[in-house]
Amino acid sequence: MTHRFIAACRREPVDRIPVWMMRQAGRYQPSYRAVRANVSFLELCRSPELIAQVTLAPIDEFGFDAAILFSDILVHLPAMGLDLSFEKGEKGKGDGGPKIANPVRTRADVDALKIPDPQKDLPYVLDGVRAIRKGLAGRVPLIGFVGGPFTVASYVVEGGSQGFTRLKTMLWADPKAAHALFEKLTQAAIVQIQAQIAAGAEAAQIFESWLGELAREDLEEFAFPHLARIAEAVKKTGVPSIFFSTGTTSHLERIAKLGYDVISVDWRIPIEDARARVPGVAIQGNYDSTLLLGPKDNAVARAQAMLRAAGPRPGYIFNLGHGIQVGTPTETVKAVVDAVHAFTWK
Amino acid sequence: MTHRFIAACRREPVDRIPVWMMRQAGRYQPSYRAVRANVSFLELCRSPELIAQVTLAPIDEFGFDAAILFSDILVHLPAMGLDLSFEKGEKGKGDGGPKIANPVRTRADVDALKIPDPQKDLPYVLDGVRAIRKGLAGRVPLIGFVGGPFTVASYVVEGGSQGFTRLKTMLWADPKAAHALFEKLTQAAIVQIQAQIAAGAEAAQIFESWLGELAREDLEEFAFPHLARIAEAVKKTGVPSIFFSTGTTSHLERIAKLGYDVISVDWRIPIEDARARVPGVAIQGNYDSTLLLGPKDNAVARAQAMLRAAGPRPGYIFNLGHGIQVGTPTETVKAVVDAVHAFTWK
Repeated sequence: MTHRFIAACRREPVDRIPVWMMRQAGRYQPSYRAVRANVSFLELCRSPELIAQVTLAPIDEFGFDAAILFSDILVHLPAMGLDLSFEKGEKGKGDGGPKIANPVRTRADVDALKIPDPQKDLPYVLDGVRAIRKGLAGRVPLIGFVGGPFTVASYVVEGGSQGFTRLKTMLWADPKAAHALFEKLTQAAIVQIQAQIAAGAEAAQIFESWLGELAREDLEEFAFPHLARIAEAVKKTGVPSIFFSTGTTSHLERIAKLGYDVISVDWRIPIEDARARVPGVAIQGNYDSTLLLGPKDNAVARAQAMLRAAGPRPGYIFNLGHGIQVGTPTETVKAVVDAVHAFTWK
Repeated sequence: MTHRFIAACRREPVDRIPVWMMRQAGRYQPSYRAVRANVSFLELCRSPELIAQVTLAPIDEFGFDAAILFSDILVHLPAMGLDLSFEKGEKGKGDGGPKIANPVRTRADVDALKIPDPQKDLPYVLDGVRAIRKGLAGRVPLIGFVGGPFTVASYVVEGGSQGFTRLKTMLWADPKAAHALFEKLTQAAIVQIQAQIAAGAEAAQIFESWLGELAREDLEEFAFPHLARIAEAVKKTGVPSIFFSTGTTSHLERIAKLGYDVISVDWRIPIEDARARVPGVAIQGNYDSTLLLGPKDNAVARAQAMLRAAGPRPGYIFNLGHGIQVGTPTETVKAVVDAVHAFTWK
């Protein structure tokens, strides 16, 4: 029988509303912090055994309806020729930001970028996928993921999380270099997600988190064509595709035409509006992750209110508008998951 | 004759499209940096002569169609009992962020807040308004402004620019304290904007910059009622009101019902969509300020494309989606202002 998460992606009826949460494996969990006490973030991303361990932990602990590969949207950058590191996060906060010692600034820098070979360059990711599938033993589906070209480019060009000014001015000052960069990052995204799916990933999410930085004109020229190609590449594999971004709800109808099965929306739009505006795709989201840091009863009541607003029509997956925040109590996560599973419209 | 800026606020026909830019007096100008070489940010905000000087400079230099009072949305906080300071910005960057040494965390903290008396507590702001009006001598209208309650509360509760987690969890953990805080900040906003108008401000902009952090349910409970009261208070004075926020385009129809004459939108929505969705208000915006950091010809071409998209219907003011960024070349600002003034639909 098709799992309820996959059924919801395909807008088929489900027995219960499927729920998972972005960054469901992360620093808010004592079990994750215990793993990270001994290894760095990149060491974790490069160990198939640890990838499987941290990916599976929230499935066992909270009963989520999907697992998502533990990895990072920048994990392939060393194979492209970029010197990636992660700063140690402040105590009590999340992981530190990424740093790229040799950021891409010129057309020559773009031309020097290699397209990664996932089998050769990222075997630990694919071995991680296989280890997770083995550990899941069919309980819930596994979601693979890659970063969207604009979002990955923002780190690659800025050299870290320093905003978007260098990348955006490159779009207009040297559009050929920008197009060449997005082309390479798109190819890199496609080979990676296809390899993850071949290794066992049963759905694919594209994290184009920072797309809201671009105006429509720039989205049309520099982002949407590449995102449509990635959707097409996933479609060929037969697994459902999910598109995630923030700050883009004005473009929802346009984004729904990119070819993804599911659109993940942030908290900036009422869920009923999102569902009404793009009835031809499934919707994932859009619970405000900050609610999980507040009182548990309120977090549960707001989840229930959101489900009522989302309505009984098939094609809805409960998730957050962005990732779970550091400091989120695990008992609140559990209470919300349980409330989603208990919810009915009778 | 009614000035074209005021006419556009009222959706009346104009001879040319009015243009001003948020943060048009700021660090991107050599003249502003020269003033700031000798005084701190708060010293500048407290000198009527310097307020007038920096407010008038961009009118003379670029030919903007409106002046906006040089001040800060937090300038009244010391009069409310809060210990406000501004960190020195990094060299070459903008001003440092605000710091509040005694942030508001409890109901008792809220109850201790005083409502400022603008005549007594902020005379330099009102004297600044009078000095600007004198310096303008009727050339262009003067816009007064205040911060919106949610945006001001975010600094007041977090103690600076540290995000929104403490404020948002207060909404749910202690809604009575949150309501009391917003009530006080609304009263403070109303007395300030009314005093600015009485002193000579000819329009009023409400900066509710961070409203996109809230989901609709929270906006309805904690933000919109207060924002409607501020709009009503401005309406009684007879000057046009402008509502500014970012990340809120999904709520545009709802925001248009708050009672403001003009809605300022960020770059995340095509201008033609914004105008079509809320025909009953004027629209201000929504040029991406990063364009001004790129090639001048492209910046001008994109301004022209935006004007074509905005269309000839009355009720449009050219502005940015957010403030002018540090490092913006003054010649690009001048070229865009000139292009807006030269634009016609013939």
